Amino acid sequence: MYDDKFMLRALALARECAAVDEVPVGAVIVKDGNIIAEGVNFKERANNALRHAEMEALSRAAEVVGNWWLEGCEVYVTLEPCPMCAGAMINARVDALYFGAYDPKSGACGSKVNLFEEGLFNHYVEVSGGNMAEECGAVLSEFFKTKRARKN
Amino acid sequence: MYDDKFMLRALALARECAAVDEVPVGAVIVKDGNIIAEGVNFKERANNALRHAEMEALSRAAEVVGNWWLEGCEVYVTLEPCPMCAGAMINARVDALYFGAYDPKSGACGSKVNLFEEGLFNHYVEVSGGNMAEECGAVLSEFFKTKRARKN
Repeated sequence: MYDDKFMLRALALARECAAVDEVPVGAVIVKDGNIIAEGVNFKERANNALRHAEMEALSRAAEVVGNWWLEGCEVYVTLEPCPMCAGAMINARVDALYFGAYDPKSGACGSKVNLFEEGLFNHYVEVSGGNMAEECGAVLSEFFKTKRARKN
Repeated sequence: MYDDKFMLRALALARECAAVDEVPVGAVIVKDGNIIAEGVNFKERANNALRHAEMEALSRAAEVVGNWWLEGCEVYVTLEPCPMCAGAMINARVDALYFGAYDPKSGACGSKVNLFEEGLFNHYVEVSGGNMAEECGAVLSEFFKTKRARKN
C-alpha cells in the first residue's frame, strides 16, 4: 500500500542528485514496510546511460533479497520510469510501482507507452502515478531552471 | 551495416551461457567495424534480473568509449531484446540493433511492443531482426530441451 513517507525519502535522494549536477531522480525499494534499497541517478558521474535511479535501487534490492525475483517488493520513484526501468521492474517481478511526476517525453507507464498494460507481459505490477507529483516535479524543474540560469 | 561475423561471435557467447546453465543469449557491441564490448546473460549467476547480455555489453561499451552516448555503436544480439534492453539502447543512443531470433513472449522490437517505432522516442535506432534466426533460435530451443530432459 502506498505511503507518502517512502516518496519523501525518494525525494530527499533526488535532491542529493541535484547537488552533484545529476538530473534529480530518486528511488527506494520497500519490502514488508521497510526500505531495503535506495538509488539515485548516477548517469553523468558513471558516464553510463543505464545507471538510472531505479536500476541502482533494483540491483541493490536483488543483492539484499538474494534473489533476482523481487517478490513482495514495491518501487517508489520520483519520476515516471522510462522503458528501460519499467522493463527492469517487470523482469524483477516487483509487486508494485508508485511514481511521482509524469514524464511526457519518455514515460513508459502511460505517457509514451504503457508497458504495464494488463496482460501485455506475464507479470502483473500494480502501478500508481502522480503521487506527490507537484513536489517531485518541482525538484526537476528547479534543477533545469538553475542549469539554464548558469549558462546565461 | 550488418555483418554475419559479429552475429557468429554473439552466438558463440550464447553457447558459453548454455554451458553454465544460463539461458543462452549473447551480445556484442561493434564500433568502426570492431567489437568493443561483449556480454552474456548473467542473470542466474548474479541472481539479478537486470543482468541480461545486452545490459552487460552496453555497460562495458560505455566504459570503453568513456561516454554514456554510444555514438556510432551497433548492437548484435542473438535474441530480440526485452523492453529493459531495448530501452537501454534508446537511452545509450546506439546507432543500430541487429538481432537474431524473435521473442514472441517478451520481444520489444515488434513481437510484444515496438519501442523502436519511428518518432516514439527522440532517438532513432536502425533495427533489423531475424538475422541468422535459425541458428540463434536453435541454441535456445536445445537449451530448454536439455533442461526438460534432465528434469524427467
